[in-house]
Amino acid sequence: MTVRAVQAWETGREADRPRLSGVLAPVLTSFRSDLSPDPARFTRHCRWLLSQGCVGLAVFTSEANSLSVEEREALLDELLGAGIDPAKLMPGTGCCALTDTVRLTRAAVRAGCAGVLMLPPFYYKGVSEDGLFRSLAEVIERVGDARLRVYLYHIPPVAQVGFTVKLVERLVTAYPRTVAGMKDSSGDWNNTKAMLDAFARSGFDVFAGSERFLLANLRNGGAGCITATGNVNAAAIARLFREWRSPGAEQLQESLNALRGAVEKHPVIAALKAIVAHHSGEAAWRTLRPPLVELPGAQAEALLGDLRRLGFEMPGLTA
Amino acid sequence: MTVRAVQAWETGREADRPRLSGVLAPVLTSFRSDLSPDPARFTRHCRWLLSQGCVGLAVFTSEANSLSVEEREALLDELLGAGIDPAKLMPGTGCCALTDTVRLTRAAVRAGCAGVLMLPPFYYKGVSEDGLFRSLAEVIERVGDARLRVYLYHIPPVAQVGFTVKLVERLVTAYPRTVAGMKDSSGDWNNTKAMLDAFARSGFDVFAGSERFLLANLRNGGAGCITATGNVNAAAIARLFREWRSPGAEQLQESLNALRGAVEKHPVIAALKAIVAHHSGEAAWRTLRPPLVELPGAQAEALLGDLRRLGFEMPGLTA
Repeated sequence: MTVRAVQAWETGREADRPRLSGVLAPVLTSFRSDLSPDPARFTRHCRWLLSQGCVGLAVFTSEANSLSVEEREALLDELLGAGIDPAKLMPGTGCCALTDTVRLTRAAVRAGCAGVLMLPPFYYKGVSEDGLFRSLAEVIERVGDARLRVYLYHIPPVAQVGFTVKLVERLVTAYPRTVAGMKDSSGDWNNTKAMLDAFARSGFDVFAGSERFLLANLRNGGAGCITATGNVNAAAIARLFREWRSPGAEQLQESLNALRGAVEKHPVIAALKAIVAHHSGEAAWRTLRPPLVELPGAQAEALLGDLRRLGFEMPGLTA
Repeated sequence: MTVRAVQAWETGREADRPRLSGVLAPVLTSFRSDLSPDPARFTRHCRWLLSQGCVGLAVFTSEANSLSVEEREALLDELLGAGIDPAKLMPGTGCCALTDTVRLTRAAVRAGCAGVLMLPPFYYKGVSEDGLFRSLAEVIERVGDARLRVYLYHIPPVAQVGFTVKLVERLVTAYPRTVAGMKDSSGDWNNTKAMLDAFARSGFDVFAGSERFLLANLRNGGAGCITATGNVNAAAIARLFREWRSPGAEQLQESLNALRGAVEKHPVIAALKAIVAHHSGEAAWRTLRPPLVELPGAQAEALLGDLRRLGFEMPGLTA
């Protein structure tokens, strides 16, 4: 199907659906001791996150690049089977291989997911803007479904390959209804601001990749944040999202920053797993799939001590 | 199976098999216009490379990170079905996901491949030596086959994640018969030299990742080279491998460098495909899978002009 055909089809048949805005967590993946995913524990965590005020779940982002396509498909089936609302899901689907990205994206759309969070193909470095455009375009056209909503996952510190303003412009021009937003995990507010200035008014939803930038993002027309620390601190982050126009907003932001600062002293995924393991009483949460490794005991103690001093709690998180 | 159990099993049951040394090509993957792999054209190129003096074929390295696991498995089956000797094959099997790497590596071993060329898990950055060790160890133990020979694929300019001397030392100490060698595509002779000095005498086969370092590599106990330009210039590179002790070796090295210099002015995979397309008369060879893109026509002309001036030919390469 050509670009034009897809656009005509979209314009003709698909009404705008409500879009997610607020706080999403890139959900931690729980593993058993044999390093296989633990769907039951994963699902429980998803439920807890929704109870804490997460508007959506960016499943298969944190650690998902250590999962095969089949493992992601099976986990998605488990979530749906357990009654998690697909309209709350924004699974990560961007892989190195075009065909894998198409397969996962198609599965997400067919399941009724709110959208997909798409890494660019990240193996080859120094690739051209044209090559990245063609890659995304090829995925969108192969999936060929008016329900598809693509959120671009910009995380150059990890993926190295990213989305420039110019590339985003080409994508939203070619696929205005499909390319719906972005998670900016550049860690660079100037980049987020440039994306907001360029695209927020035309309905492109910019999510900060860290709650550090949540208040600034909302003040500039952003849609919220998709943040790893949402796995442990969703309620407080969601409160700032609700109250960002209130006089206390700066104070709420400061408080979020303090917690994030404590977590960021450590490798973040391992640190978050240590926190969830401690507060849930489920030591199995500490397991990571190599090449990621558990936080050493002494570091975990220091982290938990820092959080105690900040009065941190995880209400309702039990095994 | 534990580390110890695997080693005991190896020592008890498996005699050393002859190892590959010489020139290997990371074989270009041929695509149809719909971007699906073209097994017939791919197989013909494999045969031509063997006829040119390649001792082996590192299939699924060039562009293979744009292929799904299933696509790589199907291509391997096609090659074997077409009568390509598995003892000549060193497929690339290192993926982001542990389970994918295990699956591809197991398939290669069962097919009787000479070895596998293994990228480290390359998505997560800044991972610890311990995490990388655990990742490789987990793959080796899950495959659990004394026939497995792992060649570490060190290519930090692309994968970003790589193998340090210390990590290699841990791996060869734990799995002396399995961890058989490395392709060093760091582009840094000092790194190759450090690997040779540390491991070549104990039977660890260091392949230069570029024929630029072939002579130096052989003089320091290396095993040959695994080089992208082998796709077009294998006969001349293989000649230097045979004649590296002769008085004319420096001259042969200079001549290889000149050709490589001409190719390296351009994105290498696209350039090599343009050369093969021209000399085979098969324009379809020019196709790349996004995010990689074809060499623009003017660049291709300039490249082919440079090669003509160097007297370059590809004898016997026909559709």
